[in-house]
Amino acid sequence: MPNFPTNIPEKTIERLSEYRRTLLKYHRQGVTHIFSHVLAGIHGITAVQVRRDLMLIGFTSDAKRGYDVGVLIEFINNILYGETTTNIAVIGMGHLGQAITKYFNSKQLKLKITAAFDIDPSKVGQTIDEIPCYAMSDFEQVMENNDISIVILSLPAKAATELVVPIINAGIKGVLNFTSAPLNFPQGIVVENYDITTILEKVAYFVKAAEENEANQ
Amino acid sequence: MPNFPTNIPEKTIERLSEYRRTLLKYHRQGVTHIFSHVLAGIHGITAVQVRRDLMLIGFTSDAKRGYDVGVLIEFINNILYGETTTNIAVIGMGHLGQAITKYFNSKQLKLKITAAFDIDPSKVGQTIDEIPCYAMSDFEQVMENNDISIVILSLPAKAATELVVPIINAGIKGVLNFTSAPLNFPQGIVVENYDITTILEKVAYFVKAAEENEANQ
Repeated sequence: MPNFPTNIPEKTIERLSEYRRTLLKYHRQGVTHIFSHVLAGIHGITAVQVRRDLMLIGFTSDAKRGYDVGVLIEFINNILYGETTTNIAVIGMGHLGQAITKYFNSKQLKLKITAAFDIDPSKVGQTIDEIPCYAMSDFEQVMENNDISIVILSLPAKAATELVVPIINAGIKGVLNFTSAPLNFPQGIVVENYDITTILEKVAYFVKAAEENEANQ
Repeated sequence: MPNFPTNIPEKTIERLSEYRRTLLKYHRQGVTHIFSHVLAGIHGITAVQVRRDLMLIGFTSDAKRGYDVGVLIEFINNILYGETTTNIAVIGMGHLGQAITKYFNSKQLKLKITAAFDIDPSKVGQTIDEIPCYAMSDFEQVMENNDISIVILSLPAKAATELVVPIINAGIKGVLNFTSAPLNFPQGIVVENYDITTILEKVAYFVKAAEENEANQ
């Protein structure tokens, strides 16, 4: 039997990550308990949703005092992280790659960016934001030596498509793809495609649709 | 009646944006027609899904030759963009803000980043990636003068929460929030929260769940 639930829906995982961040903030402020409707209000959802999410990970509240903040953080940590640190590599240390690395360096997570790659000779061999930056030719070797299981793709779309085979060969298990190239990997490799253009086009469509509906009322 | 469908599901909008990018690439290569199963294969989904998405926007194919690439691009453009250009402001011109701006400057979209904001005195009053960078104190004035309807938040989480009221007051209709602060806006303002930590934690969970399931088989 797995020692944590392995069938939690995607949206619940997203919310658990968000609850955790809020809980950490309150924990630092000395708050010991929080009610589901308070947590719900902060995240703009219903208390029923919060309770349902936490029931999925086997967590219940003291009806009088609400959830124990410290214990709930530990519960969510166990789901999201488990015992061991996950090593991550960033491929492409331009503005986006550096923004992501800096952002993670400033957090204390069990997800750690431990290697970076770039084709720029002025970056290769250097340490950027405390992370060593390697040449693409060392890809498989570095992946193996550093026990890296997830890669973040923040390089140009054209170059990303050429990385599919090396990523499979290196035994990578998860890919966070920020490029506009749709990448297909075999089953067993988790892929999240997050093209910023798509996200922005979506916001723009719903803004336009709301305006159109308003104009036609 | 609206001159375009205003009730298209979120996931379909995302896919239309992605199809469009693929179609543009093939269009540049001189490809005139494409079958739904080809488009589906590129995006790792089923042909049924592609046909269903395109039926939603009233587009059908010539059974013998597939979709007309040029006409389909125009159809999707009409849904995503409409007639007019949408002006966007980026708030926070650190690495992430600059990465987003550079990325958009290199595309020819009807979504345009036309203003940037920062608190860094060395950036305010300058032009960064061809975009003027303003002080936060000029926020409402710049929003109005530049007819900006969408803002991208790429600043520290703490500062983002202080922007909720100014954003509402400036009549902004869409917010793309890259910070880790959950922001709640009144109905009528479209908000997409895209915290990179959440996305990465999600990938890490599904990698861990897959490994756990494998070990227990």
